[in-house]
Amino acid sequence: MDSFSATVARMPALQADIAAHPERHRILTGERPTGPLHLGHLLGTILERVRLQRAGVDTFVVVADYQVITDRDTMGDIVPNVHGVVRDNLAAGLDPDRVTIFTHSSVPELNQLMLPFLSLVSEAELHRNPTVKAEAAAARRSLSGLLLTYPVHQAADILFCKGTLVPVGKDNLPHVEVARQIARRFSERYGAVFPEPEGLVTAAPDLPGLDGRKMSKSYGNAIALGMSADETTAVIRRAQTDSERLISYDPAQRPGVSALLDTAAVCLRRSPVEIAEEIGARGSGALKSLTAEAVNEFLAPHRERRAAIDSATVVEVLRAGNARAREIAAATLDEVRAAMGMAY
Amino acid sequence: MDSFSATVARMPALQADIAAHPERHRILTGERPTGPLHLGHLLGTILERVRLQRAGVDTFVVVADYQVITDRDTMGDIVPNVHGVVRDNLAAGLDPDRVTIFTHSSVPELNQLMLPFLSLVSEAELHRNPTVKAEAAAARRSLSGLLLTYPVHQAADILFCKGTLVPVGKDNLPHVEVARQIARRFSERYGAVFPEPEGLVTAAPDLPGLDGRKMSKSYGNAIALGMSADETTAVIRRAQTDSERLISYDPAQRPGVSALLDTAAVCLRRSPVEIAEEIGARGSGALKSLTAEAVNEFLAPHRERRAAIDSATVVEVLRAGNARAREIAAATLDEVRAAMGMAY
Repeated sequence: MDSFSATVARMPALQADIAAHPERHRILTGERPTGPLHLGHLLGTILERVRLQRAGVDTFVVVADYQVITDRDTMGDIVPNVHGVVRDNLAAGLDPDRVTIFTHSSVPELNQLMLPFLSLVSEAELHRNPTVKAEAAAARRSLSGLLLTYPVHQAADILFCKGTLVPVGKDNLPHVEVARQIARRFSERYGAVFPEPEGLVTAAPDLPGLDGRKMSKSYGNAIALGMSADETTAVIRRAQTDSERLISYDPAQRPGVSALLDTAAVCLRRSPVEIAEEIGARGSGALKSLTAEAVNEFLAPHRERRAAIDSATVVEVLRAGNARAREIAAATLDEVRAAMGMAY
Repeated sequence: MDSFSATVARMPALQADIAAHPERHRILTGERPTGPLHLGHLLGTILERVRLQRAGVDTFVVVADYQVITDRDTMGDIVPNVHGVVRDNLAAGLDPDRVTIFTHSSVPELNQLMLPFLSLVSEAELHRNPTVKAEAAAARRSLSGLLLTYPVHQAADILFCKGTLVPVGKDNLPHVEVARQIARRFSERYGAVFPEPEGLVTAAPDLPGLDGRKMSKSYGNAIALGMSADETTAVIRRAQTDSERLISYDPAQRPGVSALLDTAAVCLRRSPVEIAEEIGARGSGALKSLTAEAVNEFLAPHRERRAAIDSATVVEVLRAGNARAREIAAATLDEVRAAMGMAY
């Protein structure tokens, strides 16, 4: 059994323990602020995060701003992107009085953990990380030092707050493995400071983009949470389908049509096959109208709450979250220095 | 002309500028606290540092405590080693009211600079660094992440205080090149924050250990500054020489005898050839007596001042130095975040 299957197999027991003893757990999750969040983020991770918060699990949301430059040369529209991440998390139902939302660039004591942690992994291990490999291939140039050491920085994000649970998809599980390894090696070498975090595999569906590929702003196939209803309708109208009027659900042969069906289905909480049958021979136009309406109705409450959150609120949420994260990071760093005997 | 020769060629003009305008410069120098400092450190770098302080150059001395674990698994006797470094620097003449002595583990804002800096160098460049190569070979195992990224951390040590001068030997020049490159690339990408530091090649002789190899605690060939006169005499007595009674200066053929002559010569400020002639056929015993006496006389004032520095003084010097370093690092980090547009 590979480690992803093993993690999946642990989920029922873990979910039961979370429900029975939420106070035993602490979640670290977050976003890389490279662009506006989209419907895939909301359904894939943010709503699950809200559910866990409501279950009473202490939750930390890192806006991983330094990770923007792991594979690109500029920070992009970093301020609107960071503010957008905060706004969407709040609009989705995160309560800033119960959840700590912070930018890791604002927590020097977290970032310092990179130093001892880097001593606990070898270069060979960094190279074995599949995400590092994949991103290196996508970037088509020599790996930057930041990309190579990215899993170690992510371990600092997880371990600074002694996170025990990290919501993951299959792609991210190796990062949690790096964090587990660092926690274990630190304990062996210097004494127990960090729990070994576990990957929490969410049951959320992986919503494709409007063209059937991975939903991503850079593919132009994403429905951003911050779009207006008209913008949403327009982007769905532009989606590429095919000339066959009879609508059917067939992701392999009809990626465009099927992606629209998937999108409508998650918003309507119905099956894509059933929606296809309902539309029948009315063609792509009818499918697009139905999908746009379904998405706009589904997102309306989110968008209403999102519009009501002003910049001052976002700034205050980050200020408070950064202050709490720094306090916790400073306490952890003190423990780390003490364990390593660095008390002069 | 290679870069070391080029740096050496710049020295007369640079030294003249330092003498005429000490306020234009800021020095970053330091020690890796892996063991007691020895006579080689004092003559090779510390006395030069004292000279520069007296010339009026603002000086920062980093006790590079995280760098202890670049190539080993434990921190060793880190508290006595760090305290010893501070004590020897003070005993040599550094004035804590004019010089900032700090441990980099106490300056989270300095360490955070690793993140943006790592994005400015490629893995290929990290591998080209000759010190990384040499240390990797010496360590005889897979490079740790900390060893691989060590020049980037050293760039953070240099640039956090906007250091303009870094005293170097030939071995360390590539580190300064990494720092120069990072400063330059940061300016190109985000705007000017850092000056490009220059290597300051010192004229100090490279004193060999008592066996003629590089002076190092791990070779057992070093005269620690903290030794008593009796311990010094004993370690010199144990030094390996040869059975030829006529003393002559011949480093290639007679490494032990010549190392003793070198040691006596720097302490007496005489030439080793002259001392060899004076001893003539009186053999190694006479050479060792003369050397032990010369070293003990040379180190007596240092040792007297060293003994007078109590732990409370060391702790207070570090506290004040760390506080000053943090203040400067926090201001630099603010500038870095602003230049990168990370102001939320």
